[in-house]
Amino acid sequence: MIDSTGLWRYDIGVCYEELEGKETVLECIVTKFGGSSLANDEQFRKVRSILELEPTRRYLVPSAPGKRFKDDEKVTDLLYRCHDLAAEEKPIGAEFAKIRDRYLAIARGLHLNLDVEKELDQVEQGIAGGQNRDWCASRGEYLCGLLMADYLGWKFLDAAKGVVFNEDGTLNDEKTQEKLSALLADGESAVVPGFYGALENGQVMTFSRGGSDITGALVARAVKADVYENWTDVSGFLMADPRIVNAPAEISSITYKELRELSHMGASVLHEDAMFPVRQAGIPTNIRNTNKPYHPGTMISRDAPQEIYVPTITGIAGHKGYSVISVEKSMMNNEVGFGRKVLQVLEDKGISFEHMPTGIDSLCVVVPTSALAPYREEILETITGLVENRGTVSVSDNLSIIATVGRGMVHNCGTAARLFSAMSRARINVRMIDQGSSELSIIVGVNDNDFEATVNAIYHEFVG
Amino acid sequence: MIDSTGLWRYDIGVCYEELEGKETVLECIVTKFGGSSLANDEQFRKVRSILELEPTRRYLVPSAPGKRFKDDEKVTDLLYRCHDLAAEEKPIGAEFAKIRDRYLAIARGLHLNLDVEKELDQVEQGIAGGQNRDWCASRGEYLCGLLMADYLGWKFLDAAKGVVFNEDGTLNDEKTQEKLSALLADGESAVVPGFYGALENGQVMTFSRGGSDITGALVARAVKADVYENWTDVSGFLMADPRIVNAPAEISSITYKELRELSHMGASVLHEDAMFPVRQAGIPTNIRNTNKPYHPGTMISRDAPQEIYVPTITGIAGHKGYSVISVEKSMMNNEVGFGRKVLQVLEDKGISFEHMPTGIDSLCVVVPTSALAPYREEILETITGLVENRGTVSVSDNLSIIATVGRGMVHNCGTAARLFSAMSRARINVRMIDQGSSELSIIVGVNDNDFEATVNAIYHEFVG
Repeated sequence: MIDSTGLWRYDIGVCYEELEGKETVLECIVTKFGGSSLANDEQFRKVRSILELEPTRRYLVPSAPGKRFKDDEKVTDLLYRCHDLAAEEKPIGAEFAKIRDRYLAIARGLHLNLDVEKELDQVEQGIAGGQNRDWCASRGEYLCGLLMADYLGWKFLDAAKGVVFNEDGTLNDEKTQEKLSALLADGESAVVPGFYGALENGQVMTFSRGGSDITGALVARAVKADVYENWTDVSGFLMADPRIVNAPAEISSITYKELRELSHMGASVLHEDAMFPVRQAGIPTNIRNTNKPYHPGTMISRDAPQEIYVPTITGIAGHKGYSVISVEKSMMNNEVGFGRKVLQVLEDKGISFEHMPTGIDSLCVVVPTSALAPYREEILETITGLVENRGTVSVSDNLSIIATVGRGMVHNCGTAARLFSAMSRARINVRMIDQGSSELSIIVGVNDNDFEATVNAIYHEFVG
Repeated sequence: MIDSTGLWRYDIGVCYEELEGKETVLECIVTKFGGSSLANDEQFRKVRSILELEPTRRYLVPSAPGKRFKDDEKVTDLLYRCHDLAAEEKPIGAEFAKIRDRYLAIARGLHLNLDVEKELDQVEQGIAGGQNRDWCASRGEYLCGLLMADYLGWKFLDAAKGVVFNEDGTLNDEKTQEKLSALLADGESAVVPGFYGALENGQVMTFSRGGSDITGALVARAVKADVYENWTDVSGFLMADPRIVNAPAEISSITYKELRELSHMGASVLHEDAMFPVRQAGIPTNIRNTNKPYHPGTMISRDAPQEIYVPTITGIAGHKGYSVISVEKSMMNNEVGFGRKVLQVLEDKGISFEHMPTGIDSLCVVVPTSALAPYREEILETITGLVENRGTVSVSDNLSIIATVGRGMVHNCGTAARLFSAMSRARINVRMIDQGSSELSIIVGVNDNDFEATVNAIYHEFVG
């Protein structure tokens, strides 16, 4: 799909066409660039050339400048430190000088006309003057956005005007959509800094760390983007955890649902809140590498593209540290409501169960060991009461759960056979299996000390 | 284990020793003989020779005489017909003559001294005189027990004195245990007719058809039997339904729990109520063939015997006709109590669920289609309400569930692989998998039209 001579537009066009199953001219792409993509003036130049490759890239959401080298400091960390110094009524000058140098170096390198010194002075005065923690942290993205807008010659939209928070610190999704879409309705190319917004009274609030991904998704939804491009320093997501599997393959295409499954099972991917707005709006997210702009990255879409070749599995993810509460009760299956009562006991302690495999007159409830711990004895006692001397209740720990996810598994009659054969060859005992009928995943439970071996066995069976 | 020269006692002894893991002298066996084992005088003779082979067989629970040939009538059916005639105030003489002939032929063939005519006259008068349906039906076992006690020279204990029913027609388990054990405390060999008992006021009540199995289990528990032998016309249970698998192998040894799993999934084995008393008391049940008295049959025990060779699977059973309610809800896994709420909806309609496989943000509930039918729309509507426009609810029908049961599966890392490979070779798509961590079974869901092929594929993989 990639033409090495640089037929970039064609590439994107094909991706999008596949998603919708029809010829469509791409009209609007929202881009978000992470901190490492904006660490210095050289990275800013890469960003501009990426935007120039595809003129429909008309919105940009920047993070704050990240690390330029391994032991470098992120601007956001420096800002937090300045705030903490100010809160202790200590001078911030020396620390703020590091921030000042970072932005000045970028502005110099790009020959910007913007009066960066003046902006920096205002930020320094704000921090020293006792602005709150969120305001201080948000200045990294704010300043970065100012510089980028000047460099690109685009409009700068302060996120405090478009991203609305509730008093409790959560996003006001509805108001944000209303305000952002109004502010960007003129169609003018714009830079909207990530990570922060404001209460309706104007007080700046931030998302949790990494929240620029969320801002990007909100902007993409507001302008009805065709694609939301999330530019990072990796060429998309990997099929398995590289700490477990040696050099796992990249995922070229995945659905939001598959990604959510992998994410829930421990894969480190996008923040859930950064998927929700675009997933709802049917906008695909494309994870891209700023340092390899021609690499297609990972395309995340609501519906799977109509590919000719669909790999059987999309990814593998898992977790150690689950406990299994096993309940046997004579004639349980003839008793309406027993399973519900067991779940109620957990719910009363605020514990969410992961799986509930059921046999005849027996059921198991799989929960995180850490969630069970504070109430372990109490919960066992209550469930033992439900059993009424007609069975047994026991708990076993050290269960790992591994999800093998892939839309190619559906209606593929050999998938389960291959998966369990691979585990059998690796001499791994299966403690639990859970596969629902509408599922994109097979979930297996193994002993914690078989966790890594299981992930590898499954990976190498399906990926090679 | 079987010595063809007839070392029968040794054989039983070994069985029992295996069950308890120690040398034990068998002191007491309770036998129950089914209708076909008591159909005529020749069968009575077989019964006596079986009892003589093993003197510790000291109690006998008979059914009523069954069919002697394919189109013959069972005595119990004839008795019901007499009752119905009497209820319509029609003469019963011609119909009762058939019953009379059956018992007289047995008594003649065995040269009994008992005044059978007198007993038959009393029964006929009782039916004609308006005795209730249960009393009439129970006379088949009553008369059969009288004849057998006379033939063996054993004590006859009328079940009406020892088996106590509650007013609502259910068994009074506690009183029955109390009375039966007191009445049999003298240790004298006794015949106790099956199928019936009485209210405390003496009114005769029957179990459901086939209830003599229950009487046998109650007697076995009352006398603390070492083994409860259930003599029938088959040499034990089969590993699969012979209507699906051609000439399936017999099960030589099985636990009550395994049997319950197969029974619940549709295998036609013992009535649940006939297992409960002996299972609780730790008494093994031995299914035997009256016509092949040296065949060891199927031994059902509470704990698995310490066999040298444990077959991987014990049996396969399944059902067609399930429906799957599939629920997807965005971020469901982050919501405590959602699964419980879905089960509550079913419970409110008195529906028991079979399985609940869960994915990430999705769950399926498997229920019998027939149980769902009367409330289908209402239940879907209620669950749709729980989803709050953040997901979908759908139902698909025509799911078969197949349980592959076997204690040899535990800690056998290749079982799942073999099972799913066999299904894959047969081109069967897996719609659902459920295996809990303490389970003796793997449960798979397939399309109804793959049901027979699945049972055969699994059977031939493990049994050959």
